[in-house]
Amino acid sequence: MPRRGWPTANKPNRRRRRLLSTAPKNVTTFAAASVKMALRAALRNKCGFSGLLTQLSSSGHHGRVSSVFVSQMRNNTTSSKINVDFNKSTGVAVLSMQSPPVNSLSLDFLTELCINLEKLDMDKACRGLIITSSLPKVFSAGLDILEMYGKSPERCGEFWRAVQEMWLKMYNSNMVTIAAINGSSPAGGCLLSLTCDYRIMVDNPRYTIGLNETLLGIVAPFWFKDTMLNTVGHRHTEMALELGLLYNPAEALKIGLVDQLVPQDQLLTTATETMTKWLAIPDHARQITKSMMRKPTVDKLTSNREADIQNFVNFITKDSIQKSLHMYLEMLKKRKA
Amino acid sequence: MPRRGWPTANKPNRRRRRLLSTAPKNVTTFAAASVKMALRAALRNKCGFSGLLTQLSSSGHHGRVSSVFVSQMRNNTTSSKINVDFNKSTGVAVLSMQSPPVNSLSLDFLTELCINLEKLDMDKACRGLIITSSLPKVFSAGLDILEMYGKSPERCGEFWRAVQEMWLKMYNSNMVTIAAINGSSPAGGCLLSLTCDYRIMVDNPRYTIGLNETLLGIVAPFWFKDTMLNTVGHRHTEMALELGLLYNPAEALKIGLVDQLVPQDQLLTTATETMTKWLAIPDHARQITKSMMRKPTVDKLTSNREADIQNFVNFITKDSIQKSLHMYLEMLKKRKA
Amino acid sequence: MPRRGWPTANKPNRRRRRLLSTAPKNVTTFAAASVKMALRAALRNKCGFSGLLTQLSSSGHHGRVSSVFVSQMRNNTTSSKINVDFNKSTGVAVLSMQSPPVNSLSLDFLTELCINLEKLDMDKACRGLIITSSLPKVFSAGLDILEMYGKSPERCGEFWRAVQEMWLKMYNSNMVTIAAINGSSPAGGCLLSLTCDYRIMVDNPRYTIGLNETLLGIVAPFWFKDTMLNTVGHRHTEMALELGLLYNPAEALKIGLVDQLVPQDQLLTTATETMTKWLAIPDHARQITKSMMRKPTVDKLTSNREADIQNFVNFITKDSIQKSLHMYLEMLKKRKA
Repeated sequence: MPRRGWPTANKPNRRRRRLLSTAPKNVTTFAAASVKMALRAALRNKCGFSGLLTQLSSSGHHGRVSSVFVSQMRNNTTSSKINVDFNKSTGVAVLSMQSPPVNSLSLDFLTELCINLEKLDMDKACRGLIITSSLPKVFSAGLDILEMYGKSPERCGEFWRAVQEMWLKMYNSNMVTIAAINGSSPAGGCLLSLTCDYRIMVDNPRYTIGLNETLLGIVAPFWFKDTMLNTVGHRHTEMALELGLLYNPAEALKIGLVDQLVPQDQLLTTATETMTKWLAIPDHARQITKSMMRKPTVDKLTSNREADIQNFVNFITKDSIQKSLHMYLEMLKKRKA
Repeated sequence: MPRRGWPTANKPNRRRRRLLSTAPKNVTTFAAASVKMALRAALRNKCGFSGLLTQLSSSGHHGRVSSVFVSQMRNNTTSSKINVDFNKSTGVAVLSMQSPPVNSLSLDFLTELCINLEKLDMDKACRGLIITSSLPKVFSAGLDILEMYGKSPERCGEFWRAVQEMWLKMYNSNMVTIAAINGSSPAGGCLLSLTCDYRIMVDNPRYTIGLNETLLGIVAPFWFKDTMLNTVGHRHTEMALELGLLYNPAEALKIGLVDQLVPQDQLLTTATETMTKWLAIPDHARQITKSMMRKPTVDKLTSNREADIQNFVNFITKDSIQKSLHMYLEMLKKRKA
Repeated sequence: MPRRGWPTANKPNRRRRRLLSTAPKNVTTFAAASVKMALRAALRNKCGFSGLLTQLSSSGHHGRVSSVFVSQMRNNTTSSKINVDFNKSTGVAVLSMQSPPVNSLSLDFLTELCINLEKLDMDKACRGLIITSSLPKVFSAGLDILEMYGKSPERCGEFWRAVQEMWLKMYNSNMVTIAAINGSSPAGGCLLSLTCDYRIMVDNPRYTIGLNETLLGIVAPFWFKDTMLNTVGHRHTEMALELGLLYNPAEALKIGLVDQLVPQDQLLTTATETMTKWLAIPDHARQITKSMMRKPTVDKLTSNREADIQNFVNFITKDSIQKSLHMYLEMLKKRKA
């Protein structure tokens, strides 16, 4: 099967045409670093991601670095933390998280993730996305606690906006999204998988998944809660969130937190076969249906985004919470030693 | 057991009294054709069905045809597409759909169905309704695609209003409603069964049930979605609607899409026994409870009815959708040949 | 393990300090009778319970009866209908209902229950509450029908306000609440258990649980419905409430109406072990999470409280409903004879 990276001269779809009307064709080829800076600026200016690539593209028009990246990305998009392997013949991209030791969702990681999602969403040729981990034993350990500990309110807010952006991009994605969960997936890692259309987990009883925030003394925000509620219903969500429950694969399957269990060596094959089934449905009808199911939940966050950031910042910068995080980090250090 | 048709001198209940204050007692006996015309006019004038029988009755007052029908309907109500067998001693009516080849929900079919539902609902003696099919292998194949293909916007709107009316009458019915599903029940057929209080399906693995609209490139509207959501929850609804899933009886039972499976030859017996159980509950308390459970969902449609019709018409008359339907119809033709 | 009753000189928490700023330390020691009178007055004046203890304490300041009660309550709080055994070392109180023959929720019973809940909620040392029955075979038979039959509208309203208060206190409690269901639990008894965070039921097939109001011709109000819906979902709630279903333990476990079944002799041990698990979660994070899950449901009642009382009074004082209740009471008498 011929696999190709990001097409530089791909026929742009309508949305892309709009965004890139004045832009060069090699818009996808900027150095990750400059993209990240622009992205953060955009986040800071609260303009969201949608206007971002226009900015990037006009500045990149003069960039010298681009040609280097073009060649690199013919086969796939690689950055320090994320690898995207896009198979144009099938229309399916496999996004692998490769940020050791545990794919923590740091600001940098989320920024890269969002850039990749933005690009994939804009590429009409890309209809499906499989998210998995390149690391053994862990899918993602969730939000990076170091982003919440000892940081300024501004930085905390910037971080939280990126978490929201990841959720909005994923939960609202026009692509078919499948989580291939090949390791433990607590807290934010669980959230990431819950945003997908389908979840396949490796059937290893050592792996766990769940929104276990309360164990750390922190609280899953309403949109984490809504995402879980839409997946496993009110009662399981209530109990899971109050107790910070982590489920092993069999338990997760039983309550519907994941949809399917497979042996490790069948994970990607199964994900690919499942994707084929989903892609057999006409995109348009499937996308409208997905939006109908998820829009009320998405709208709740988009219309309360700034307040939600403020809430998070107020909460996380409290002395008592910072103390809890300190203790948790000390415990982690000791465990390693 | 003595079985009787529509009582011509039945003591009218309060609602009936209101509607029929100026009407003769044999209001139920008008020729189906003229009823249908009046009904369509009512639909066209957006006056809903509630004022319909008043119109009919005043015109029918002078009608000669009525006496003929009175005698015919002593035993049951028969029309080309629907047969109603009302057992006054038990208070239970069995409504059999008999419109070959597949009980498609055409405008004519829906009109007849709604007239029959209106009459049953107004008859205080009728407390329970069992809906089934007289055809082998199919309960109902759902909305008639020919009503959506190559039709004028006006006609499409008229059709959609009748679909809404069927749903409103059924989902909101004061009667206990049981679907005796003796064959496949895709799309609108599934919707019809979902409006009932209880679903019993014949345990034949060849039969399927589900809201599979996306397979045709069309989208189940929000009230189809809400009806399914109230039955099987958010997650199953999301996956079922996005993938256009059709479930065999065992799968349907597992997710709660149907409540019970029985062998073909026990279907009506089981439905009748189940009905007896439901009718043991005081009507008043049961009806208020049912309304409490369903009113929010009903209100969402009644307060958005015109917009929903407009949405449907705009969507279904699109070139791309018409093309999809054309292809589907061609495929059906080839399959027959 | 040292077990103590209500501490008379316990360090008051913030809320208690506010309430009791002008009050003596032995506020918990008033005679149950006078407390009940004040409570009823508070209910009548629609001021809710929150300002109640202030009133009580200022009047009690001059009371002579208090010193007698202080000594009695060192080990536990006893009244005619409810026994509270608070183990200060574990932070867990066991509230046993002991109102023969069936722990009916009469106005007196509810008043005592609410006073005890108010006290426990105000005591920072009390973090967990186990509710059980001292009677064999019955947890609680639910609302006392004698409070609804042949009573004045005022009295009916007073009763209903107390039912609401019980629900609000329980469903909204900051404590971890576990129902140890050691007998049948119909109607209001089921509601009481549904307000808890976790339900453990004795696995005796003779015991049943459910909101069976329709069997009596009455209707579970919207907040009974919401509580069940949050526990077992829309479809099970719809069917259970319309049919007035009572489930045996195995059935209740299957639909999620209870969380766990145990043999009779392991009930309290299991409840205590479960409580330990719940109390391992930081209170603050758990409480915020619980509130996030339940607040919308609580708010619906608090913002419609008076209308809900009026609805109840209008409904229950109807001739037809009074007749139903009369017949039901006659039937009960005959059954006893």
